[in-house]
Amino acid sequence: MKALVFEEKLSLQDVPVPNPLPGEALVKVRMAGICKTDVEIVRGYMSFRGVPGHEFVGTVERSSDSHQVGVRVVGEINAGCGECSFCRKGLERHCRHRTVLGILGRDGAMAEYLTLPASNLLAVPPDLPDEKAVFTEPLAASLEILEQVKIQPDHRVAVIGDGKLGLLICMVLRLTGCDLVLVGKHPEKMKFFTDIQGSAIPLDSFCAGDDRFDVVVEASGHPSGWELAVSRVKPRGIIVLKSTYHGSLNFNPAALVIDEITVVGSRCGQFGPALRLMESGLVDPTPLISGIFPMDLAEEAFRESQEPGNFKILLKMGDD
Amino acid sequence: MKALVFEEKLSLQDVPVPNPLPGEALVKVRMAGICKTDVEIVRGYMSFRGVPGHEFVGTVERSSDSHQVGVRVVGEINAGCGECSFCRKGLERHCRHRTVLGILGRDGAMAEYLTLPASNLLAVPPDLPDEKAVFTEPLAASLEILEQVKIQPDHRVAVIGDGKLGLLICMVLRLTGCDLVLVGKHPEKMKFFTDIQGSAIPLDSFCAGDDRFDVVVEASGHPSGWELAVSRVKPRGIIVLKSTYHGSLNFNPAALVIDEITVVGSRCGQFGPALRLMESGLVDPTPLISGIFPMDLAEEAFRESQEPGNFKILLKMGDD
Repeated sequence: MKALVFEEKLSLQDVPVPNPLPGEALVKVRMAGICKTDVEIVRGYMSFRGVPGHEFVGTVERSSDSHQVGVRVVGEINAGCGECSFCRKGLERHCRHRTVLGILGRDGAMAEYLTLPASNLLAVPPDLPDEKAVFTEPLAASLEILEQVKIQPDHRVAVIGDGKLGLLICMVLRLTGCDLVLVGKHPEKMKFFTDIQGSAIPLDSFCAGDDRFDVVVEASGHPSGWELAVSRVKPRGIIVLKSTYHGSLNFNPAALVIDEITVVGSRCGQFGPALRLMESGLVDPTPLISGIFPMDLAEEAFRESQEPGNFKILLKMGDD
Repeated sequence: MKALVFEEKLSLQDVPVPNPLPGEALVKVRMAGICKTDVEIVRGYMSFRGVPGHEFVGTVERSSDSHQVGVRVVGEINAGCGECSFCRKGLERHCRHRTVLGILGRDGAMAEYLTLPASNLLAVPPDLPDEKAVFTEPLAASLEILEQVKIQPDHRVAVIGDGKLGLLICMVLRLTGCDLVLVGKHPEKMKFFTDIQGSAIPLDSFCAGDDRFDVVVEASGHPSGWELAVSRVKPRGIIVLKSTYHGSLNFNPAALVIDEITVVGSRCGQFGPALRLMESGLVDPTPLISGIFPMDLAEEAFRESQEPGNFKILLKMGDD
């Protein structure tokens, strides 16, 4: 099968179709998304080697659960041991022995086939097209904020970062009724949010002001976002950390102690609610699609995904 | 009056008795405690100049509230503007225009007299001796953790730091029934906790293990405590930051994001619950007293408070 493989560098290769282990399913990938995390992986994040990609929609070709065969699915990307205290609570995404699709110990979705535990797969509602379903993973990651933090309708919330994740987060958080502002650098990206009556402010203007927020979501993907978040959160407020990047930053813990700031690291979320929000039409991520490339042009698609003007780049496999 | 004053350096001086502003009370200090924060102030923390000291018990000499005159009191150390959204919620300790006794814009308790808003003062129960009441502030700061974080009886909790604050925190958290361990460097200090059937482990042994905890309280007062806390908290666990020191540290935000760690900065707490716990006998801080010095020996007391073997050093004013 064709697969984008990251070793020393990223290249399109012909590799064997993976063999599902007992309890796993073989999924024929229909569409895969390229994420900022994939770009970070190529820069060294997680020291991953293999097939990247963790955003996909596909069709089950073989499965330990025979009812799944032929079903169009998305799949939770963390595969736990099934036995530890986290797995027993349904928190496979925190199992210490987990593999993570295209990120940690498991080849990912930028290929014609992938394997995942059958229990990780969720059927996609028939009316939800591939172009939406492929956003389930990043939308679930956005919804994770609401699983962790009680955002109230009277809260003032700032989301720093007008990348793909920042915009999906805005699409989700606006549903709480909170007073929400997107802080960005790119007018053409912020427009995706103002087009749905969202509020956005350029980074420069935000930095010049001194408004404080109950909740600041740091989704800039850059170390500078941290300092900005600390400076603009209210005392007793919450900073949600969404950015993962290869590198570290300097901070003064006394600033967190004195203002009693809470910092919440936030990663993957549950897929069911993400599918529901798209099915109901409350979240429509398709305006974020900048391009759809066939698998043969996967290398070019990966390059395109790093162009500043571009948003979500998708890979489409096969002909169906 | 006699007062310990920090300018270029710390010295015992004769200064005028302070004049209470409208709404304030003049308090004759009976006893004052020396805190690690006072030591950090002399090292540059908060750029404070004036009379340090924020732990005290005293007798009201004059007050805008005439019922307070003659009453033995402790006093919340944050004086708010009374008008902002924080003050209106009873969170004067987060008012942006606050002064803080002996820490920020207001002379403190290492003097014969101090002033505070009358509304900051709480009467000390008659049976509670000065030697206990003087611990109200640091005990309230320990209880603040329970106002911010829901510590459950089945949680495993580690407190890093066997200083005065670390031990008071242990005395408070043990009341939740949680599985609690104190991590320290000083056998003679950890003994204060094992003497009340608490569990303690030397720092070296703790570092050599790989147990993970639901909650880690970082009260070491040292940047190295941060890294240790991050390495030993469970995924989805909570780090409570209690240490304030002059300086900063380096960290990798991805570690917080991947394990979805929550970091809670924690500072001052409410005095009422602290008085109740001491009055009921559930917390007895007096074993932590290493020495009681008269005001004339205040400089020596301050030096003594920095001796590694010493715990709480108190200043006793006057003769009563």
